[in-house]
Amino acid sequence: MSSAATVTDLGEQGVIDLLAHYCPTTGEGGVLGMGDDAAVVAGGGWVVTTDMVVESTHFDWRYSSPADVGHKALAVNLSDVAAMGATPGPFFLTLGLPAGAAVAALEGFAAALGALAAASGAWLAGGDTVASPAGWVVSICLLGRPVGEPVQRAGARIGDSLWVSGTLGGAAGGLRWLAEGGSPEGQAGLVARHRRPAARLALGAWLAREGRVSAMLDLSDGLATDGPRLAAASGVGLAIDLDTLPVDPMLEPLFGSSAALGLALTGGEDFELLFTVPPTARPWLAAAPTPVSCIGRVTAAGVVWTAGGRPVAAPTPVDHHFPRRSRHE
Amino acid sequence: MSSAATVTDLGEQGVIDLLAHYCPTTGEGGVLGMGDDAAVVAGGGWVVTTDMVVESTHFDWRYSSPADVGHKALAVNLSDVAAMGATPGPFFLTLGLPAGAAVAALEGFAAALGALAAASGAWLAGGDTVASPAGWVVSICLLGRPVGEPVQRAGARIGDSLWVSGTLGGAAGGLRWLAEGGSPEGQAGLVARHRRPAARLALGAWLAREGRVSAMLDLSDGLATDGPRLAAASGVGLAIDLDTLPVDPMLEPLFGSSAALGLALTGGEDFELLFTVPPTARPWLAAAPTPVSCIGRVTAAGVVWTAGGRPVAAPTPVDHHFPRRSRHE
Repeated sequence: MSSAATVTDLGEQGVIDLLAHYCPTTGEGGVLGMGDDAAVVAGGGWVVTTDMVVESTHFDWRYSSPADVGHKALAVNLSDVAAMGATPGPFFLTLGLPAGAAVAALEGFAAALGALAAASGAWLAGGDTVASPAGWVVSICLLGRPVGEPVQRAGARIGDSLWVSGTLGGAAGGLRWLAEGGSPEGQAGLVARHRRPAARLALGAWLAREGRVSAMLDLSDGLATDGPRLAAASGVGLAIDLDTLPVDPMLEPLFGSSAALGLALTGGEDFELLFTVPPTARPWLAAAPTPVSCIGRVTAAGVVWTAGGRPVAAPTPVDHHFPRRSRHE
Repeated sequence: MSSAATVTDLGEQGVIDLLAHYCPTTGEGGVLGMGDDAAVVAGGGWVVTTDMVVESTHFDWRYSSPADVGHKALAVNLSDVAAMGATPGPFFLTLGLPAGAAVAALEGFAAALGALAAASGAWLAGGDTVASPAGWVVSICLLGRPVGEPVQRAGARIGDSLWVSGTLGGAAGGLRWLAEGGSPEGQAGLVARHRRPAARLALGAWLAREGRVSAMLDLSDGLATDGPRLAAASGVGLAIDLDTLPVDPMLEPLFGSSAALGLALTGGEDFELLFTVPPTARPWLAAAPTPVSCIGRVTAAGVVWTAGGRPVAAPTPVDHHFPRRSRHE
């Protein structure tokens, strides 16, 4: 890579690899470190995760309120804890605010953050508040308690079934709706998926309690990115049947079937859980607290996408972390 | 406060109080939460701290390199762990980078971050990397292991002596030197205090191991702010003798005695440890791994500053978190 290369050229995985190259990544008391939804630390069995949301990258004041941002900043971390099969505990907040940010905006942010924390069992245990000249930046580090063994991305076994919760594409569809000038009231469901994502906490804990889930992660970047991630972490392949994807039913009437499928595969921010279980688990999953769909199976190698019974081209993953174009453009 | 009030009007403590008003701040597994250098979580005895550094607020590319920023972002968290009497463990990094940030800059950042992590026993256990349109933002959440009982800000007892490590004012003096056009080589010691702060890890662990320290914090905002903080947390007063302050000896020749004292009291970012011990601990402290100075004593109430044996006006604290003027202007 030339000396003029930028982090956008490197992409998210390249940035992570570079950091891991220069930094020690293991030490006394670390059970499971980088590369999963959360790290597991020894003693007391905490999992730890962190995610940052940045003005203009993750939200735009044209489409989101301070309350939406407070909710989302915690929800994206709750989703990682859910994907480990853990329940939320203390969180640590670093908050960068422009000097001219209104107290009323901060109140809206804090009220929604606090409401989601209270509803999910998380609590504010510390943090840092600083001036951020160019815009709001919210970084949360959340600890969680695994209800059983922490569920990792690694662990999928050949022959397992691949399942996903809820519906896909709604969050990106809601943002597209707003960006194209739609009124929030016109598609309240989709807009809520973008503004106020829900972490699948009850499902994650329910799945982990039984110990039957072999691998799990949350869909933050889209199935096109996160499916291959689960396969790579587990050292297996996947066969994914596009005909079985639970694409949000509101998307096709609004944007057409091709765009709807694209949003479901690469839109990201759905925060649904993707997990693998033995095929014998199907009857058990009928009782899951959130609807779940079987979308494929675990194979020996390679990620193969099929439609109408035939292999199709793999969807092109979108790097939402260092995008060539902002989501909000 | 009027509806047009801003977070700068509120100030750091006001922002913290607002967040704590709206968010739950206690829960199962939390032993010690907000208001100390770090939180203590149950099970395995981890302390957890977090700090964010933001371009233009905490550093300026005119005065600091990417390597300096990588070092500083970890050092400010290490200092909080030192102030709890703990040793560093896993850390979690959220990194916001402009899309056009050079890979070479990221490499410089990561190399210095990794070198300090390796030298201090910390390791990278997870994180999130995102595009940040307006500038670099680095937030680190660091876990530490207390070597004995975690040393809190609360605990100072009337009659205890007040001590501080090292020298004060050097970090702000180094920044002032650069901002006034001085060459880095001309005052390498002061400039290093600004660019590459050192956390007092060995001292913090040494002090905590003996169990004789009644209260401790690190001087991130300056003695004028952090001294009263220790007093308030402990429910005591302080008598601080300005004549005994270990003002960095380079400051007076450069800036005059009045400015030198001001830098020592309100400049911030020295990351020295401020702590209280029984008066009988004086001989023991002669063996401390870092030079320490006795600068006062713990009283029943009020923070009284003296010079030449007489009370003087209290120094005006500077809010470095939401400043009326940037450090870098």
